[in-house]
Amino acid sequence: MSITLTVAEKKVAGKLAGIKEKSGSHSPSPAMLSGVGVIVRHDFCYLSNPHATDLFLKRWRKDFSREAKLRNLVELYPSQNRALAEKVGEMVNVSSGHIFVGNGATEVIQAVLHNFTEKKMLVPVPTFSPYLEFAPKSVRVIQHQLEKTDLFRLDLHKLLAEIRREKPDTVVIINPNNPEGGLVNANDLHLFLKRLRGVETVIVDESFIHFSGRKIESIAPLVKKYPNLIVIKSLSKDFGIAGLRLGYGVMSEKRVSALLERGYLWNVSGFGEYFLNLLNNKTFLKEYEQARLRAIEERDAFFTELQKIRTIKVYPSKANMFLMELLDGSKASDLSVRLLVRHGIYIRTCYDKVGLNGEFIRIASRTTTENLKLIGALKNILPE
Amino acid sequence: MSITLTVAEKKVAGKLAGIKEKSGSHSPSPAMLSGVGVIVRHDFCYLSNPHATDLFLKRWRKDFSREAKLRNLVELYPSQNRALAEKVGEMVNVSSGHIFVGNGATEVIQAVLHNFTEKKMLVPVPTFSPYLEFAPKSVRVIQHQLEKTDLFRLDLHKLLAEIRREKPDTVVIINPNNPEGGLVNANDLHLFLKRLRGVETVIVDESFIHFSGRKIESIAPLVKKYPNLIVIKSLSKDFGIAGLRLGYGVMSEKRVSALLERGYLWNVSGFGEYFLNLLNNKTFLKEYEQARLRAIEERDAFFTELQKIRTIKVYPSKANMFLMELLDGSKASDLSVRLLVRHGIYIRTCYDKVGLNGEFIRIASRTTTENLKLIGALKNILPE
Repeated sequence: MSITLTVAEKKVAGKLAGIKEKSGSHSPSPAMLSGVGVIVRHDFCYLSNPHATDLFLKRWRKDFSREAKLRNLVELYPSQNRALAEKVGEMVNVSSGHIFVGNGATEVIQAVLHNFTEKKMLVPVPTFSPYLEFAPKSVRVIQHQLEKTDLFRLDLHKLLAEIRREKPDTVVIINPNNPEGGLVNANDLHLFLKRLRGVETVIVDESFIHFSGRKIESIAPLVKKYPNLIVIKSLSKDFGIAGLRLGYGVMSEKRVSALLERGYLWNVSGFGEYFLNLLNNKTFLKEYEQARLRAIEERDAFFTELQKIRTIKVYPSKANMFLMELLDGSKASDLSVRLLVRHGIYIRTCYDKVGLNGEFIRIASRTTTENLKLIGALKNILPE
Repeated sequence: MSITLTVAEKKVAGKLAGIKEKSGSHSPSPAMLSGVGVIVRHDFCYLSNPHATDLFLKRWRKDFSREAKLRNLVELYPSQNRALAEKVGEMVNVSSGHIFVGNGATEVIQAVLHNFTEKKMLVPVPTFSPYLEFAPKSVRVIQHQLEKTDLFRLDLHKLLAEIRREKPDTVVIINPNNPEGGLVNANDLHLFLKRLRGVETVIVDESFIHFSGRKIESIAPLVKKYPNLIVIKSLSKDFGIAGLRLGYGVMSEKRVSALLERGYLWNVSGFGEYFLNLLNNKTFLKEYEQARLRAIEERDAFFTELQKIRTIKVYPSKANMFLMELLDGSKASDLSVRLLVRHGIYIRTCYDKVGLNGEFIRIASRTTTENLKLIGALKNILPE
């Protein structure tokens, strides 16, 4: 039996629609929801590893017990871009000249699309919307539709065929993809890159790669071999620090220089720089690895539980989120309102995802305790 | 008698030259200096109101006594640009649709120059270097030389004459100007704007306007009347929060929309958003006003003392800094090294300032105690 909203729930639905309108193709923040009197207790909408946030806060408490250190972060200008790149280089395993540090991956996406696209860009959909929205007006964006029958997995053969047909100067691959978490194997991607030498720019977004498995198979080091390759990565999700705004792009040294020549001088805050310093702290990295593996285990356990709910179809994922389709005739918007009103749980509906039609929701994987709460709430709202 | 460096000082001079090379037309950060073993005890290079930093840290201690609040700042995505603009609007006294919030004024400068310049831009020199460096390659930058005989003050008649000669599409005015702190009266600027209706873009940078006097005469509200006007402002200097990266541009609603349509989605960190919330807190604003007036009084008292040193010429300033010329034949670089080595005092030499030739230094005005330390050190190094 599908969901029918009560009068009170319809009122909340109206409020949500109002603030959603102000948020474009993104979800209103929990702060915006609280502004209209809707309290989020569990945020399954934004994608973040809460164990990594715990770890960051633990370091913070230790490092800022003396106020003088905090004062420096607030009062002084942070380091310039090239100095920040050195702090990222070791983790990425490329020299710092190949790294452009950004104020969140969104800034990197914007910088890359505004500077290195030419006329035609091919983007698989559904995907992270800035790739569709940030291109300059002069660039035509071609959507490469991922098929529901393929579980929305990217098929490199189909993509290659469309590249040969459309001849774009820029190709985008999000790996694992958002919203469904499908992963393309690093070896396959390498073979694919060999065939794409004629394409001016190949963007591979690895923002979720830290959730892909025990071993992280980033193709970032290949920028040395393929000057057309740009690997983009957010640090928000895996490290649980969206509020700090940090991401980076790995690309040819020439392109990094082109970006820094005319801007991006002090684009990371003192707090962001503090975090980049942690990336060079062995103890932090060791503890982070535990937080990362724990998130992966919890994600896999969550999948097993979600699969048991017969009224939803859950797509397998190598990111820290799941795309789910409602099978009982319920509307995704009604489910999201009921979860909020009855359980304080905030999820993402997918109506605004280009290339995705139907009643879909996307949920983050969080801690085991929170994941079980969502399972309980879903079973309660969507009985079989 | 001019300065002659000792062997030990020459060694430090070499280290400084090395890191300066990596910093372009900006100064190496105190952190970079410490990286080569040079410790900064008093930073007179970067421009910031230390009383405002005190105030911010006081609020911080109060607001983040509960870790849950800090966690939200770290873990959650901050608000999107338009929501942030609403938080700035009240202070600026224009509606939020006219406001573009930036990750520091440097991001605003970059956004404006990359999007709204056409072929020719006129920039008075010496000035803040990003205005010379961030223009797109296709834009010719014409330097309007400020005269030493005018104390480097901008003469609007001379500027107007050059505008008529050169016919630029973009004109830049920094008010008060950096490095010397010269102020153009708001009324004169308004009359000037009336004559510039034919110029596509007039950028007025008011990053130091909060230090100009008891009354702040910003021309930002004129954007409603002059769609070609763009007012840019850093929040780093007056509010003592350079590490947070915050600034804004006030411009036509059409231009704000053009910028936000293709980027700048989450360009301010959670910590930046926390500060923007303070701008709507009456108690904070009242306390800030005291910190602001105190900085102005200290600046004026500092000027009186600096004028007593006969071996330097100090230029009058309405910003929180002074441009000074060495009159005893000493080199600015030698003075800066000696101040660092003997007194832990970091100042800015001006060799890289386009349009400024000779032995000039720029110093910030800080607290009375620190200012007196610099006076003592200068008297010690440059005896009459």
